[in-house]
Amino acid sequence: MEIIFLGTSSAVPTLERNHPSIALRAFAEVMLFDCGEGTQRQLIEAKISPMKITKIFISHFHGDHILGLGGLIQSLGFRGREKDLDIYGPKGLHKIINAISSFGYFQINYNLNIHEIQDGTVIETEDYVVECAKVEHNIPSYAYSIREKKKPLFLREKAEELGIPPGPLYGKLHNGEEVEFEGRIIKPEQVLGEAKKGKKISYSGDTRPCEAMIRLARDSDILIHESTYEAEDYQRAVDNAHSTSVEAAEIAREANVNELVLTHISTRYTSDKNIKSEAQKVFKNTKVARDYMKIDL
Amino acid sequence: MEIIFLGTSSAVPTLERNHPSIALRAFAEVMLFDCGEGTQRQLIEAKISPMKITKIFISHFHGDHILGLGGLIQSLGFRGREKDLDIYGPKGLHKIINAISSFGYFQINYNLNIHEIQDGTVIETEDYVVECAKVEHNIPSYAYSIREKKKPLFLREKAEELGIPPGPLYGKLHNGEEVEFEGRIIKPEQVLGEAKKGKKISYSGDTRPCEAMIRLARDSDILIHESTYEAEDYQRAVDNAHSTSVEAAEIAREANVNELVLTHISTRYTSDKNIKSEAQKVFKNTKVARDYMKIDL
Repeated sequence: MEIIFLGTSSAVPTLERNHPSIALRAFAEVMLFDCGEGTQRQLIEAKISPMKITKIFISHFHGDHILGLGGLIQSLGFRGREKDLDIYGPKGLHKIINAISSFGYFQINYNLNIHEIQDGTVIETEDYVVECAKVEHNIPSYAYSIREKKKPLFLREKAEELGIPPGPLYGKLHNGEEVEFEGRIIKPEQVLGEAKKGKKISYSGDTRPCEAMIRLARDSDILIHESTYEAEDYQRAVDNAHSTSVEAAEIAREANVNELVLTHISTRYTSDKNIKSEAQKVFKNTKVARDYMKIDL
Repeated sequence: MEIIFLGTSSAVPTLERNHPSIALRAFAEVMLFDCGEGTQRQLIEAKISPMKITKIFISHFHGDHILGLGGLIQSLGFRGREKDLDIYGPKGLHKIINAISSFGYFQINYNLNIHEIQDGTVIETEDYVVECAKVEHNIPSYAYSIREKKKPLFLREKAEELGIPPGPLYGKLHNGEEVEFEGRIIKPEQVLGEAKKGKKISYSGDTRPCEAMIRLARDSDILIHESTYEAEDYQRAVDNAHSTSVEAAEIAREANVNELVLTHISTRYTSDKNIKSEAQKVFKNTKVARDYMKIDL
């Protein structure tokens, strides 16, 4: 799995930080979390083909998180995409996509599948689960987590002891299904070891610190949390429904995550030094995201 | 007057060239011609405050020319703009701006004045005239010209010979008005010299070479013309309703302009060397625009 930060600013971009967007390369897919203006160009710089994007998860409908959708959707059409694109976001996503569709003349030859989300499981595949939780912003806003599903170890010697011959029955058992063999019911737990814990990544979108975020982020390997403000600008954070660096660090500590990555940095700071150091006092394993930063896990 | 190229690519951006947009600093205003995705960030790099933009002229409604409008309009709201913003474009501009208005949650405290244009004069002030002409693209598309209005020289000695005292009458005469003085009618031509020719700039938007473009660009100091393709890709230019470098140069020659600047370069070329050299064989005073290139005139 690889996380690539495409944009790490807040509402206004700077020369160093573009509007919010995060790419995740995992499970033979490329997924985007948010899609601010200019994301299609950031993808070029990050050497990620937009044609490989399978899913886009939108946290909320503030312009800095969605204004790159139109360009990306049109560009994919221009490049001849035929594969479906799935877009997930809060209630109102259909209206947003309709607005994009009436924005100028263009044609796409692929399907846009629009999914309006609610608290809970957003999508579950064989390989991973994406969940979301409504967080606390000044408009409806969701945080996302994605958790890798690891199959438990298949204990071949146990299967052999039970006399089951190698073949399709092994696969079924490994997938957690009961099988019948020579009149006997074999349960998967008879041949499966412990499941390894899969990797988990959480992303806050825009939010005040909240219980829902802690629950969603619980035990994440990486928590990507907005940190629009330094601690001394706490009142601004409250007024604008954002978090300070210290508040983000407190969430990381409460949720028992392994690593905290701060993003969505306000243009009011010329350096992210304070943001980082004050967060690290609360939660040591903290870094501040920069555009094109990559994290392997 | 200063022209600043903010984006010089065609439909797909590259690391070097963003989507089309041209800024003009003149007459104590900043005007934009087209506004592709990411224009607000290009403005930062070019050190032009978006708050100073007074007018935006849109050539046509292909995404690469308009997808930066939403971000710019929202950003100006975010920055607290109160001054009106005038936007000009083909029929359908109201619909485009409505789509932007329903795109997510935001609030602006300034007026957007929407002007749907037709062939002819778009706006005339004391200082300049903007005209447009419908050109030949695969959707309705307009080229623009802006011409500085120069007042003729006021010949003070002639006014004195006629016995007119210095004061408000001089201003009226200089502005082309007749005045009455001691029972005599004084006509402006009695005290005015020849008018100096004002600067003229023309911009093609997207088009096949056409007579309307030649007429609009006639005697321009600078013609900014699209040159999506090299001459050998002539058939692509025809198929996609664009121009080749040589065709743009022929327009420049026919229109008797002083300088040709080629823009809207396709991503298929890694260098603009051919585009430039083949155009220069037809029209010597040609350059190829690059992002952030400035021209003073």
